[in-house]
Amino acid sequence: MTNPNAEQATILIFGASGDLTARKLLPALYHLWQDGYLTESSPIIGIARREKTDDSFREETRQTILGADAAKTEEWQHFAQQLFYRELDLTAAGDYERMTSQVAEIEEQLGSRGKRIVYLATAPSLFYPSVEGLAAGGMIPNRDSNEILRVVLEKPFGHDLSSSRELSNNLGRILSEDQIYRIDHYLGKETVQNMLLFRYGNAIFEPLLNRNHVDHVQITVAESQGMERGRGGYYDQSGAIRDVLQNHVLQLLCLVAMEPPAMFRADAIRDEKLKVLKALRMCEGAGMSDCFVAGQYESGTQNGERVRGYRDEERIPADSRTETYVALKAEVDNWRWAGVPFYLRTGKRLPHRVTEVAIQFKLPPLNLFNTIECEGDICEIVNARPNTLIFRIQPKEAITLMMSTKRPGMQYQIHPVAMDFMYEEAFERRLPEAYERLLLDVLRGDSTLFTRSDELEAAWEFVTPLLNYQSLPTSQPEIYAAGSWGPRAADEMLRRASHCWRQPHAR
Amino acid sequence: MTNPNAEQATILIFGASGDLTARKLLPALYHLWQDGYLTESSPIIGIARREKTDDSFREETRQTILGADAAKTEEWQHFAQQLFYRELDLTAAGDYERMTSQVAEIEEQLGSRGKRIVYLATAPSLFYPSVEGLAAGGMIPNRDSNEILRVVLEKPFGHDLSSSRELSNNLGRILSEDQIYRIDHYLGKETVQNMLLFRYGNAIFEPLLNRNHVDHVQITVAESQGMERGRGGYYDQSGAIRDVLQNHVLQLLCLVAMEPPAMFRADAIRDEKLKVLKALRMCEGAGMSDCFVAGQYESGTQNGERVRGYRDEERIPADSRTETYVALKAEVDNWRWAGVPFYLRTGKRLPHRVTEVAIQFKLPPLNLFNTIECEGDICEIVNARPNTLIFRIQPKEAITLMMSTKRPGMQYQIHPVAMDFMYEEAFERRLPEAYERLLLDVLRGDSTLFTRSDELEAAWEFVTPLLNYQSLPTSQPEIYAAGSWGPRAADEMLRRASHCWRQPHAR
Repeated sequence: MTNPNAEQATILIFGASGDLTARKLLPALYHLWQDGYLTESSPIIGIARREKTDDSFREETRQTILGADAAKTEEWQHFAQQLFYRELDLTAAGDYERMTSQVAEIEEQLGSRGKRIVYLATAPSLFYPSVEGLAAGGMIPNRDSNEILRVVLEKPFGHDLSSSRELSNNLGRILSEDQIYRIDHYLGKETVQNMLLFRYGNAIFEPLLNRNHVDHVQITVAESQGMERGRGGYYDQSGAIRDVLQNHVLQLLCLVAMEPPAMFRADAIRDEKLKVLKALRMCEGAGMSDCFVAGQYESGTQNGERVRGYRDEERIPADSRTETYVALKAEVDNWRWAGVPFYLRTGKRLPHRVTEVAIQFKLPPLNLFNTIECEGDICEIVNARPNTLIFRIQPKEAITLMMSTKRPGMQYQIHPVAMDFMYEEAFERRLPEAYERLLLDVLRGDSTLFTRSDELEAAWEFVTPLLNYQSLPTSQPEIYAAGSWGPRAADEMLRRASHCWRQPHAR
Repeated sequence: MTNPNAEQATILIFGASGDLTARKLLPALYHLWQDGYLTESSPIIGIARREKTDDSFREETRQTILGADAAKTEEWQHFAQQLFYRELDLTAAGDYERMTSQVAEIEEQLGSRGKRIVYLATAPSLFYPSVEGLAAGGMIPNRDSNEILRVVLEKPFGHDLSSSRELSNNLGRILSEDQIYRIDHYLGKETVQNMLLFRYGNAIFEPLLNRNHVDHVQITVAESQGMERGRGGYYDQSGAIRDVLQNHVLQLLCLVAMEPPAMFRADAIRDEKLKVLKALRMCEGAGMSDCFVAGQYESGTQNGERVRGYRDEERIPADSRTETYVALKAEVDNWRWAGVPFYLRTGKRLPHRVTEVAIQFKLPPLNLFNTIECEGDICEIVNARPNTLIFRIQPKEAITLMMSTKRPGMQYQIHPVAMDFMYEEAFERRLPEAYERLLLDVLRGDSTLFTRSDELEAAWEFVTPLLNYQSLPTSQPEIYAAGSWGPRAADEMLRRASHCWRQPHAR
């Protein structure tokens, strides 16, 4: 507990009865506390409408984190003293004043002062009412005050460009930009952050990451799940573009394509990411279908098991046109990347859960050697394989460089090999969960890994034509079998450019 | 035995009683035969002065290859039928005619025709007399004949520039350049050949291997041995410059520094190597001692064992000034490499036997991150480590890329990691011995890995100033302890340029 990096703050979780709070936020806070990043005078206060006592909240939390059967350790009992629960109807602005004084009371008791974090783990429709409530309850510090308030939001940030703008404007009337932390949990993953360190901590990659040496880039966010756990209702209103492309995929693209920042500061980095988003182009002078494919899964076989199609899932209309898969070909139209295709795809019910960014380099200009591939004793001559640099973000975080080496023996034959760097093997310690990292950043006030409102707007601007195209009455997502890598049109889109999609393994 | 790549030839080994024949040549030929690269109609004929029958030669060879106690396998008995021995005083030109008819007789018996390989595993003083003898014996085919004769030589090729030239001229009067195969067994090693494939089979390294990105290159040929097995007599006349620098080290330098050849053919590659040797410079406008260090080992401790100093070794004069270590700083003064130091070193009685080529890249232009190194739980902030690409040629052939990655955790801390590619792990098969590869190349007439006379001359030209400097009465090699990494002056030479020698592990 004597960690010099320990942070002190009051942490309010709005929507404390929800899934995110139980599965992610409370465990992350517990681990931060265990690792000494959170002081003993930092209360964690669950806020929701449901009736609950501190004790029952503590007991619930213990069962979630330690497991129902686990003994109450001394450590736990210690931590539990910092857990509280207060009832509040988030829509009742008049009730916030009472909550403020309850919070002040708890702070008094633990000796917390000066910094409050409010995590809005609520339905998006409650974002603005909650912030209005905070204002009504007197929780927003004066501009010239030393007190700190930070509000953390989870996507979706609006449903499209105009609703996102409206939310940003509304929040902006009450909060300043530096009080708003828009979380994208992908950015809390080690490999995602490592993309930055890998690019700028090594001198040998930056000279290669440009149009002279890169053939194309593929970003894949593949999910094996369908509409489990009652997700269908939300998902059918959202679809793959809003759910994954607009945020996770574009954020990954920014990190791989951005210019080096002059310093490693939040705004310097976000300025560079913004420039990438603003330079993103699709299908200049061609029909949308040349560079965009939407798909929807039908029943199929996944991991040897029969699974049902999207339209047969719970809470999905039988005539839904919602896309469960999108693939697109984009370009970052700047000096560094002009002409290099960035292929982006995400989908549900794909063969495995895997997220990766793959940079495929050009082939050597001369073909000086034979390329031989062998399986056991059977070898054949094949086309040379280009070098590929792969950042695997999940499931097993890793960096792989695909290279050619000499096959031992009497000829000069190329043999493709992988130089791997597996995170878990290299570091014999638990990788911190994304939420731990991101919550600590909020506590510290480091917004590097959070989305700024102008980034958010640029991302919405980029996907707006896709959303519009999707909503045309003539647009129908192409059907693909669950357990396949998506619709055939996505393969054809790449084949036209003599490329093909990677089929990443889950390993 | 139905290998379509099998070669047919008569193989004569001159100096068949020697160490090289027993330890390297005969085992290599046996393995080539086992692997089907040598037909059954290819006799292998040992030639030497000592009296010996075919049977005793076969028995000796069996004991060397299979071991004294091994059973005579059917396979061996098969192979042994191709082994022969004939007596000859190599200095007696008049006796070669008899040998020629003996060889013809054996060829008749086995059905060998059209191609003869003569391996001169003899003292260098016998190279020219042997070739003269071949001529006297009628073994040199007419220029317009379809018959093939190839003569293989082992270093040393002369003692200095003029004696090397003399040897080349003498041989050149009898043999054409394409009949002469000057072997450097280093070039038969997989990793050495892999340097070529790695550079030109991957598109991502060639753009980095130049003065813009490379800080410096280190080539180390470290031997742990001293003057075992009666080497002292030869070595004291030779020294590290002639024994290792002039051939192995400069060949490795050529392979790492050469421009891509337009095609993968022997002469195209050797043209490029020659250009490197011709562009090699040392100490422009400065004293030799600024870029050259010679050393000699005194007694010391190696692997926990006390070993004696060079001057106390067998057959070494007590006042010998022969260098057992050299280190130098050279430059390849061409467009690609100008200004990049190439540090070369080789020595006896260094801590391990290890040969490697290490390319150290520049640091990133911006220092955006902390660099943390940890041993167990103890971490400290250190200087960033540059990327390094290492070709380890022996003992365990490997390619390693030293990189920076993010240390998992809450800060952006650099952690240096190695991406390794170990040959033996990657390919579950015995790596062919250098001599197997090289002998097969001679059989095939592929001279890519052999030294052409103009390369040889350029290498001698480069070392001549070093030899001259060494032979000055005022020159004394600096003493270093056996088991250390060489004399202090070598460390200081690098320190003046803010560099330091790697300390490669044997692993």
